[in-house]
Amino acid sequence: MTTQDALFEYLLRLGDNTLILGHRVSEWCGHAPVLEEDIALANTALDLIGQTQMWLGLAGEVEGKGRSADDLAMLRDVWDFRNVLLVEQPNGDFGQTILRQFLFDAFHFDLLTGLTKASDDRVASIAAKAVKEVTYHLDRSSETVIGLGDGTEESHTRMQAALDRLWPYVGELFAADEVDAAMQDAGIAPDLSELSSSYHTRMSAVLAEATLVAPEGGFAHSGGKTGFRHSEHLGHLLTQMQWLQRAYPGAQW
Amino acid sequence: MTTQDALFEYLLRLGDNTLILGHRVSEWCGHAPVLEEDIALANTALDLIGQTQMWLGLAGEVEGKGRSADDLAMLRDVWDFRNVLLVEQPNGDFGQTILRQFLFDAFHFDLLTGLTKASDDRVASIAAKAVKEVTYHLDRSSETVIGLGDGTEESHTRMQAALDRLWPYVGELFAADEVDAAMQDAGIAPDLSELSSSYHTRMSAVLAEATLVAPEGGFAHSGGKTGFRHSEHLGHLLTQMQWLQRAYPGAQW
Repeated sequence: MTTQDALFEYLLRLGDNTLILGHRVSEWCGHAPVLEEDIALANTALDLIGQTQMWLGLAGEVEGKGRSADDLAMLRDVWDFRNVLLVEQPNGDFGQTILRQFLFDAFHFDLLTGLTKASDDRVASIAAKAVKEVTYHLDRSSETVIGLGDGTEESHTRMQAALDRLWPYVGELFAADEVDAAMQDAGIAPDLSELSSSYHTRMSAVLAEATLVAPEGGFAHSGGKTGFRHSEHLGHLLTQMQWLQRAYPGAQW
Repeated sequence: MTTQDALFEYLLRLGDNTLILGHRVSEWCGHAPVLEEDIALANTALDLIGQTQMWLGLAGEVEGKGRSADDLAMLRDVWDFRNVLLVEQPNGDFGQTILRQFLFDAFHFDLLTGLTKASDDRVASIAAKAVKEVTYHLDRSSETVIGLGDGTEESHTRMQAALDRLWPYVGELFAADEVDAAMQDAGIAPDLSELSSSYHTRMSAVLAEATLVAPEGGFAHSGGKTGFRHSEHLGHLLTQMQWLQRAYPGAQW
């Protein structure tokens, strides 16, 4: 695998994470429990889709086959997606959505912080823009997780159920493969094992304050970032997300 | 509107009812509460899709523009569908699925019985084949509605909730418009007001035995069979049903 190929794969991972999570979060639009949360979720979704445009735009440039960010987002099929399984999980209730967001934001924040020092200026500059937005995402999701976890009996029960449901998707965030190794060697990506230790320190603090307990045992699902095995949820998400471009090929605003 | 145009519209209504209900019922495949119901539902879905092939095949022939049953099923958009709103409603729990089936089967059975006497031989012959299958569907769904309605407290409560949810979609089945009038004048379709009275007689008997009570008041949703206003559920159903043909145009077995 050339550095160029690895960079293309790596950019797909970055862009697919924000695309799929952005789409999921946008599903709340008009449905959130209170107006302020509805708007906050819509803004989060917009930030993530905006980051997608930059990552997938650069991916298309690096690939050099003339594919635009739109082509990559709307015309690839499920097996070509490289997002982690965590972000394709269904929204569930509001608590599950916020917990998924927190589990991703904490990873995303450290990852982007690392990427601001990338040897590739294009990557560093996108990361610098994105990390500003993600700082807010992480503030908001960690505070909400604490508020709901250490809230009423019902909100606590729901948050603990969400954590039990989603925790097995955390391991994949830090599972390094040859793409990660190539990007680290090229001075682009940070070391995932360092990220993992910073992540788990943050987790312990926030979960303790939220009176939530992460499940024991190290089982982790995998197959999303490598594209080897996505969950059936991603296929259903794509049928809706890509519908317009599939039904009306080449449609433009 | 020529008789030819009305016949095309009418055949779309027949074929879209069976297509959309067949797809909905097929969503249960592998998910029903017991194996026997799973297989029974899959068989019902297959019958309905088989009938669709005949109705939409004839619709394409009558239209005379070279569209096949597959083209009509997979390449029309939501506003071109002519099914009643009842059949596009989500499955809900097993009770809601069976109640929807019963509300449709009772109508379908009388309608097809009438259509076996159609002045158009092609219509009469499809109806004769279909009514044999629908006789079984109706037997089964009415018996299951009785068993669950007059069953445990939980099954009764769920069936009553399903009836409250779905009853406002019954009125559309008998709302006649110019297409129905043209088909009745041409000696093809039975009189919908006669069908309505036979339907409500049957309903009263089955619902009484099932200890279920139809909601009062005459409100009925409309807009499905005319294509004027489908529910958002149909759009989501189509994104999944049509995905393969949209993503891989012209794909064949």
